[in-house]
Amino acid sequence: MTALNRLDHIAILVSDTDKALEVFHHRLALPIVFTEILQDQGVRLTHLDLGGGAQLQLVQPLRDDIPLAKFLAERGEGLHHIAFYVDDLRKTLDALASQGIGCQDILPRSAPGGKKAVFLNRGDTYGVLVELTGHLR
Amino acid sequence: MTALNRLDHIAILVSDTDKALEVFHHRLALPIVFTEILQDQGVRLTHLDLGGGAQLQLVQPLRDDIPLAKFLAERGEGLHHIAFYVDDLRKTLDALASQGIGCQDILPRSAPGGKKAVFLNRGDTYGVLVELTGHLR
Repeated sequence: MTALNRLDHIAILVSDTDKALEVFHHRLALPIVFTEILQDQGVRLTHLDLGGGAQLQLVQPLRDDIPLAKFLAERGEGLHHIAFYVDDLRKTLDALASQGIGCQDILPRSAPGGKKAVFLNRGDTYGVLVELTGHLR
Repeated sequence: MTALNRLDHIAILVSDTDKALEVFHHRLALPIVFTEILQDQGVRLTHLDLGGGAQLQLVQPLRDDIPLAKFLAERGEGLHHIAFYVDDLRKTLDALASQGIGCQDILPRSAPGGKKAVFLNRGDTYGVLVELTGHLR
């Protein structure tokens, strides 16, 4: 198993991206990298630079019928998941499966910048939601 | 206000460091950087390398009478806070205060490696617990 040695982003679930940007961009002065709406998943994503190649991702659900909206209603805003960049998504998932760590997604979902992403089973990662993002080869 | 452009660590609150290491060190293959007990604060901290200068911090309360133990009992294990390294803690806190962002600690607390740390008021940072760590000049 290759180490997951490249943190891609830390995600914060928000109900209002503009209000969150007032804090993280205007007051804490984190630069905006991009903002993107993933229509198929019903989310608005905004990335801020954390230095060292890592980003802070603000995730705002845009529809009420997606699991994230339910999570937001039940648990509120706050830290949601951490994501690692992996060079070869398929190979990494195979290696993790051999360690007993499964993933939630049958098919990888779309991610910003044309990448793909999967979420690992939270129960396999000590209750912490972990995403892997990268390319399918 | 200078940007908080250097992520220091992401913290996960755990009830059992060894069980958490089974996942994050043995299965996800994150290298251990150090483990340290801060007796004055009643916590065991274990840092794992996330690449790019950032680390994953496992925080285990060692006493029942500290706020972290209460938080763990009420909210459970999982993502707890994010921490930025700042070169000049006092100057940064002054700049943040002028932005309306206060901190929880009257005096900075001790942090690993002889550094100091403060936690910002969660209500001022969109419900996300943010720590600043660095040196007092």
